[in-house]
Amino acid sequence: MPHSLFLKDIQTRTNELLIKWLPNEQQTPTRLHQAMRYSALNPGKRIRPALVFATGEMLSANTEVLERAAVAVELIHAYSLIHDDLPCMDDDDLRRGIPTCHIKFDEATAVLAGDALQTLAFEVLSAPYVAELSDYKQLQMLRSLCHASGSLGMGGGQAIDLFMTNKASDLATLESMHRMKTGALISASVKLGFLASDCEDQVIATQLDMYSQSLGLAFQIKDDILDIESDTETLGKPQGSDINKNKLTFPALLGLDGAKKRATELVERALDALERIPLNSEKLSDFAQFIVNRHH
Amino acid sequence: MPHSLFLKDIQTRTNELLIKWLPNEQQTPTRLHQAMRYSALNPGKRIRPALVFATGEMLSANTEVLERAAVAVELIHAYSLIHDDLPCMDDDDLRRGIPTCHIKFDEATAVLAGDALQTLAFEVLSAPYVAELSDYKQLQMLRSLCHASGSLGMGGGQAIDLFMTNKASDLATLESMHRMKTGALISASVKLGFLASDCEDQVIATQLDMYSQSLGLAFQIKDDILDIESDTETLGKPQGSDINKNKLTFPALLGLDGAKKRATELVERALDALERIPLNSEKLSDFAQFIVNRHH
Repeated sequence: MPHSLFLKDIQTRTNELLIKWLPNEQQTPTRLHQAMRYSALNPGKRIRPALVFATGEMLSANTEVLERAAVAVELIHAYSLIHDDLPCMDDDDLRRGIPTCHIKFDEATAVLAGDALQTLAFEVLSAPYVAELSDYKQLQMLRSLCHASGSLGMGGGQAIDLFMTNKASDLATLESMHRMKTGALISASVKLGFLASDCEDQVIATQLDMYSQSLGLAFQIKDDILDIESDTETLGKPQGSDINKNKLTFPALLGLDGAKKRATELVERALDALERIPLNSEKLSDFAQFIVNRHH
Repeated sequence: MPHSLFLKDIQTRTNELLIKWLPNEQQTPTRLHQAMRYSALNPGKRIRPALVFATGEMLSANTEVLERAAVAVELIHAYSLIHDDLPCMDDDDLRRGIPTCHIKFDEATAVLAGDALQTLAFEVLSAPYVAELSDYKQLQMLRSLCHASGSLGMGGGQAIDLFMTNKASDLATLESMHRMKTGALISASVKLGFLASDCEDQVIATQLDMYSQSLGLAFQIKDDILDIESDTETLGKPQGSDINKNKLTFPALLGLDGAKKRATELVERALDALERIPLNSEKLSDFAQFIVNRHH
């Protein structure tokens, strides 16, 4: 299957799964549930679910277990976007081409919708399975997602990002911030795909980890590049918003060509890691190529 | 042990446990970790941990398992207070006599600190135990806390509360909101104490549920009464703030005497439920008395 079809398929599946797991809009409190659905179902790239499925299917993991992991990781991502967009944070009005949650609803509802999407992510991973997944494995998956989301992962990365604005900083600091802010959840997606399977090969686990860490950073560098090279319509958010907000970016530190070179290096490192896995990792390698070639 | 000593002991234990589980202030991102510790360690009544311990100790539950549950439920409570106090929500400057998180730090840090405290609660409950607790039981405990915290529990109750302000409403609606906003987490505290033990007696489970539901509502009614009868210094927050914010309260609907009568009825119902449990439930009954007799 060409990579574009795989991604399209993942987007459809993820949406169907989210529709199933999100609380019904008619259920009280309706406004909160509307806001949760509005933000989580806003059509995103679904990169994290794609990584869960691509990893898990390579390792013949059970579909139900992968579906749960994909939903949970996307719910964490959706919650983080709602809170990042708040006036006290990045103050963004537009997300994926439509009004952000606090613009469409109101600030209080946006705070609570983010909060409840986070809770739902852990509820999805802790609910009983039809599939035969050991309780031990289920707990390992929960731990992985907790660790990637908290103050030493995604949440901590966002805090560092907030206070880095306008301050002189170096490449090591910028990379370490992004490894937490974006990288931790991207790595968790791959890790969840691995944990969902019966594979216990530590060489595979280590190579997958190297793959996802390089991929996560390449993804962020490409985001920074797109903010300069793309346009508002393609991005679904204002082009040049990083520069306008005085955000420290990879192109600002390395130059545009330097940033592109670094992204290419990281993707090569990700592909090298995959080559050491004796399985058909085509989807994961296609994915790495996609990360640097995408237009939004 | 007199009830006041029991509560004092719980407060000391809870603080020691929170200090252990919260991330170190020196660890990056330091400002976020400072905010998390500032809010979670702000000396509260620790009512939810007290209910976990009182229930669990009655049922001879393992101490480590109870300690984890107590920490987790208090972290969820602490996160909810930070977000409730935000300018877009209740806009409170004072909590337990000291500046709220967004006043002491800033709004963005307060949002992120609340988010990370929620994640930490689930991390605490999903981490491996030294004690012999089955993975199955551990998952049950996680599910209970998720369900109590999310959009059909505490988070949903807060959403209903936000949009109830200034609107005509009836007793049933008010009670149902508080059963979610405060009641769900109070019930979860008792439930976690039960799940931490080896007890599988469904009669006991049902009576404990009745006890905690009545207690949770009585607790909220007493809060409303204190907002009228107490003073700012004793409360640690401005006296009369409910009335000033046009919040619907039990005294507003039932009159002050009617509200007191309802609280007393509920405590009696809670005590009745305990009488049907063939164990020494003294701490839980003392607790119910304390709820209606407290001064802040």
